[in-house]
Amino acid sequence: MAKVGVIMGSISDWAIMEEACKVLEELGVDYEKEIISAHRTPEDMFRYAEEARRNGLNVIIAGAGGAAHLPGMVASKTTLPVIGVPVESKALNGMDSLLSIAQMPGGVPVATVSIGKAGAKNAGILAAEMIGSFDDTVARSLEDYKQGLKDKVEEMRRDLHERD
Amino acid sequence: MAKVGVIMGSISDWAIMEEACKVLEELGVDYEKEIISAHRTPEDMFRYAEEARRNGLNVIIAGAGGAAHLPGMVASKTTLPVIGVPVESKALNGMDSLLSIAQMPGGVPVATVSIGKAGAKNAGILAAEMIGSFDDTVARSLEDYKQGLKDKVEEMRRDLHERD
Amino acid sequence: MAKVGVIMGSISDWAIMEEACKVLEELGVDYEKEIISAHRTPEDMFRYAEEARRNGLNVIIAGAGGAAHLPGMVASKTTLPVIGVPVESKALNGMDSLLSIAQMPGGVPVATVSIGKAGAKNAGILAAEMIGSFDDTVARSLEDYKQGLKDKVEEMRRDLHERD
Amino acid sequence: MAKVGVIMGSISDWAIMEEACKVLEELGVDYEKEIISAHRTPEDMFRYAEEARRNGLNVIIAGAGGAAHLPGMVASKTTLPVIGVPVESKALNGMDSLLSIAQMPGGVPVATVSIGKAGAKNAGILAAEMIGSFDDTVARSLEDYKQGLKDKVEEMRRDLHERD
Amino acid sequence: MAKVGVIMGSISDWAIMEEACKVLEELGVDYEKEIISAHRTPEDMFRYAEEARRNGLNVIIAGAGGAAHLPGMVASKTTLPVIGVPVESKALNGMDSLLSIAQMPGGVPVATVSIGKAGAKNAGILAAEMIGSFDDTVARSLEDYKQGLKDKVEEMRRDLHERD
Amino acid sequence: MAKVGVIMGSISDWAIMEEACKVLEELGVDYEKEIISAHRTPEDMFRYAEEARRNGLNVIIAGAGGAAHLPGMVASKTTLPVIGVPVESKALNGMDSLLSIAQMPGGVPVATVSIGKAGAKNAGILAAEMIGSFDDTVARSLEDYKQGLKDKVEEMRRDLHERD
Amino acid sequence: MAKVGVIMGSISDWAIMEEACKVLEELGVDYEKEIISAHRTPEDMFRYAEEARRNGLNVIIAGAGGAAHLPGMVASKTTLPVIGVPVESKALNGMDSLLSIAQMPGGVPVATVSIGKAGAKNAGILAAEMIGSFDDTVARSLEDYKQGLKDKVEEMRRDLHERD
Amino acid sequence: MAKVGVIMGSISDWAIMEEACKVLEELGVDYEKEIISAHRTPEDMFRYAEEARRNGLNVIIAGAGGAAHLPGMVASKTTLPVIGVPVESKALNGMDSLLSIAQMPGGVPVATVSIGKAGAKNAGILAAEMIGSFDDTVARSLEDYKQGLKDKVEEMRRDLHERD
Repeated sequence: MAKVGVIMGSISDWAIMEEACKVLEELGVDYEKEIISAHRTPEDMFRYAEEARRNGLNVIIAGAGGAAHLPGMVASKTTLPVIGVPVESKALNGMDSLLSIAQMPGGVPVATVSIGKAGAKNAGILAAEMIGSFDDTVARSLEDYKQGLKDKVEEMRRDLHERD
Repeated sequence: MAKVGVIMGSISDWAIMEEACKVLEELGVDYEKEIISAHRTPEDMFRYAEEARRNGLNVIIAGAGGAAHLPGMVASKTTLPVIGVPVESKALNGMDSLLSIAQMPGGVPVATVSIGKAGAKNAGILAAEMIGSFDDTVARSLEDYKQGLKDKVEEMRRDLHERD
Repeated sequence: MAKVGVIMGSISDWAIMEEACKVLEELGVDYEKEIISAHRTPEDMFRYAEEARRNGLNVIIAGAGGAAHLPGMVASKTTLPVIGVPVESKALNGMDSLLSIAQMPGGVPVATVSIGKAGAKNAGILAAEMIGSFDDTVARSLEDYKQGLKDKVEEMRRDLHERD
Repeated sequence: MAKVGVIMGSISDWAIMEEACKVLEELGVDYEKEIISAHRTPEDMFRYAEEARRNGLNVIIAGAGGAAHLPGMVASKTTLPVIGVPVESKALNGMDSLLSIAQMPGGVPVATVSIGKAGAKNAGILAAEMIGSFDDTVARSLEDYKQGLKDKVEEMRRDLHERD
Repeated sequence: MAKVGVIMGSISDWAIMEEACKVLEELGVDYEKEIISAHRTPEDMFRYAEEARRNGLNVIIAGAGGAAHLPGMVASKTTLPVIGVPVESKALNGMDSLLSIAQMPGGVPVATVSIGKAGAKNAGILAAEMIGSFDDTVARSLEDYKQGLKDKVEEMRRDLHERD
Repeated sequence: MAKVGVIMGSISDWAIMEEACKVLEELGVDYEKEIISAHRTPEDMFRYAEEARRNGLNVIIAGAGGAAHLPGMVASKTTLPVIGVPVESKALNGMDSLLSIAQMPGGVPVATVSIGKAGAKNAGILAAEMIGSFDDTVARSLEDYKQGLKDKVEEMRRDLHERD
Repeated sequence: MAKVGVIMGSISDWAIMEEACKVLEELGVDYEKEIISAHRTPEDMFRYAEEARRNGLNVIIAGAGGAAHLPGMVASKTTLPVIGVPVESKALNGMDSLLSIAQMPGGVPVATVSIGKAGAKNAGILAAEMIGSFDDTVARSLEDYKQGLKDKVEEMRRDLHERD
Repeated sequence: MAKVGVIMGSISDWAIMEEACKVLEELGVDYEKEIISAHRTPEDMFRYAEEARRNGLNVIIAGAGGAAHLPGMVASKTTLPVIGVPVESKALNGMDSLLSIAQMPGGVPVATVSIGKAGAKNAGILAAEMIGSFDDTVARSLEDYKQGLKDKVEEMRRDLHERD
């Protein structure tokens, strides 16, 4: 069964990255999670990336903030697709994280999503889409999820019109 | 066989998006290309996105500049993974394209790559990685490609030292 | 009688978009409001835009945040004037919303106003101005509104001088 | 017959603002054009704005760059809708123009379009849309214009596929 | 005796602009203050600027936020030096105010100071410096003020070393 | 007679700062010019600032780019008004210069003008305005200059209408 | 024994700069600290920089915010390495501080670290690295510190997995 | 004798990084240079960083553009001081490079210099300053270099005055 690896540089990123894990569960996609710091545990990062395919991973989601090097460096060591989540940074609100993740040089892509919680949730969905492209069960979960989004809009409409 | 759809809003984006097609060919990944404009041909865009999976596509790459709505709107109509390439805009150098593509709300992800030609090339590689995650032949092409990158560095080193 | 359609992507935008509705009421301009999400209910968005003129609308006001595609996509499907309100986004304070709405390509305009509540209020006034350009009653309401702004400055002056 | 006033701060803006005039002609909308500088001829600017409605104008398009005060100051003196075109500035590429035009305080809206030539063209179309909201002939011109945009995409497609 | 006019667009700017008035008092420079809104009371603004020299003013300090047109428009109507204070805006933290004030076209200068309270204080000191350039009493006040700044650093040093 | 000191960090700034000198000549204001580098000749900078008043200067204009410290450091050593001209920098187009000059802390103001040539010209005019606030001859030159700006608009209008 | 000088412009910077001092203590590197304001005590700043080497300092760490001139001006008066810490500014979150410190002209370098507390801590470590490059005891402290970073990741991992 | 390692991600960075090498030669500091790509040759990067101290290096200078990970990743694997040079990127002019290099998390510093050629030159001088802090010969070279900067200003002054 396909599996996603969700990694982040620090326990403080968990409040954000948890969103990726939650939506993966909701979509019925298997995952594992770990703290892997590009700057503090570079050897572990390399090992994780190198062994990812062998360990049964199909996609890696990596969250990082500021000079966010984790997604790009993992991408340099694997041919699996790597999704980068720009975690909101203290001073610059994640603009530094976004540029550090998105602006990879030609040859080594990172699939960048939006800054913060919405981005982490989207990373989970995007990983599921990559799997669902080849796995009909996950594709159906995604269809249901999309329908759920529509249903929520219906609820919001009732809410809005009750405010009249 | 897996296939990638490469779309762009205007023929003027071709100089950029060609990079995606070139690298897909190099990696032996099948693709089709088309002009689909979110703002000028919205119905075609919806049809393309809706029928993509049925038409045998596994990944969609969409390039757009400025208020770049093509990747996000395609993503709203399919559960396939959508890769967005921010095309460099005239006034703001693609910063507007990057934000319009990357900052998607929770629920509808776009896999954003870097601005311009490097990003288009990376979109092709990323699409191949998504396929290669389930297809060993493409995975091997990607390994070879990565080795090629290393080899080019070796060449550059000789070039640098000859400059002494 | 002329009418304005006020739409927004989520109930959470109502706190902002309410300002547009309030000022339309104050100016005696008829309006309707609805939740229309570009990314979650794209079909509804297309239908809304396509039928807007037939349904008696003269102007559409669309509020959205982040990768804010609602105003531009509505504009792609109607020849009515569309006003876009950049809702303040969490990480980037609405700079992404502003660029995603304002930087439309040649051919499909969106009338962009300022970020957040002031912008939503201005969207309402701008819609009234478009109508007032052809409707003398609304034009007179706008003259009164402008006079009201002047009167408020008079009040502020008294307030300031009392602080001496 | 409805009429649009196209003004700009300097003859050097004409290369940009010409796009607005061209598209107005194409759409069969009457217009006049003038140099009105907020900072060099403030009295003329006030007079122009004050007399605009009386002079038969229905919409004003104002182009300006840098600390671009023309659109907002004209808006302060009329209840007609004012469209602001951010002209690309030398150092900051029009980001200053965009913010100076878009970020108007609550009470005095400016309908901001994109930076540069695309924005000027869009200003013309937007003015036509405001008129077309009440004038069926202009509305039909706009429908034709929109169809023309679609047709151009068809041409681009042929062009793209010939490149195979 | 030389005199400074301190104006602002809204009573809500007083919390900032008060800093200018306080330091003018501290430096023994005469001033008057008023609410003058570029967008709501444009006629008052023109009158104020036109009559400023005749009314005995030597310098004008104008505070404004967002699309901050007050300083530049006052400058267009007087040959007195105009100091612009960029008031912190809600969404963009005053970056829009700064650019709208500083980026004036050649021919009509505004003396821009820093964003917010520090800028308002500096506007007061700068006005005093302009006067002190021709008035020895004010020049001496400024020398004392500068010495006061040094003395405060001495206090801070004692404070720092007590923390050991 | 009043006099302005025009300083810049490098001969390469002369192409920009020349604009200040030209307009001072045009306005009949006496000036001197010198290369004073904050980072390469800090002692000269201090001496220049300290002796400026004694040497008969009434205003100092300082141009600098990048981490532009010259205007602020000169301001720290004199009670004369200091005007800072942000010279366009290579990579960041003068945004760094603007922020380094404008964002002075409370207590030490710099009168910042716009980036580049327009700013240098405005620095000259602003210096003349400071002097003209106390000197009727210079005030009259400034009135003439302002009239000249209006006249140029008249010429531009003829030019525009000839293009019909 | 090698020694680091830690200076800052105001006591309000201490909450940030304290991080530099703490980590220097942790690494066993001698330091002194002082308030030195570029704009309020420029003479002290020059004296401090000029005498630094003679006073036994090997590295200077300077923290400053906004138009942050302290690090660059100290660098202009010494050949010791100067580390600049961009203190978070009120309006612009330290983006102005970062550019004012980093964008030094060729000839006078400042070693810039990240904005705020993380940057101040890094300034301390960087100073230790400069010393540790020539001093084995400090080099060993740095090795231990690096190992400590790894150990903290191990703790975080246990923390993360306990959350399952 | 102390030695500096100058590395860069691509031969295309040499035009920039050459400035670092030139000034090291001018200052009489020994150096070596190599192409080391974070994303294409991550293993070489780790090896280079790990062995740097053992190989007699005292400082590492690393140049990189875009999502510039080389300096930060090298810093994660050595306790030597690492200087990062933000190379100007195509779309964003090096703003992405600057943020990716400067905004390192607490624990792993990079000494960031200015963007582009001036930054590369400053990296060389900064490396020499680190060495000169412990090596009197290099310290004297730096004093001479600083004197040379002053002398160049003298030349510029003559040049400026000849233009009268």
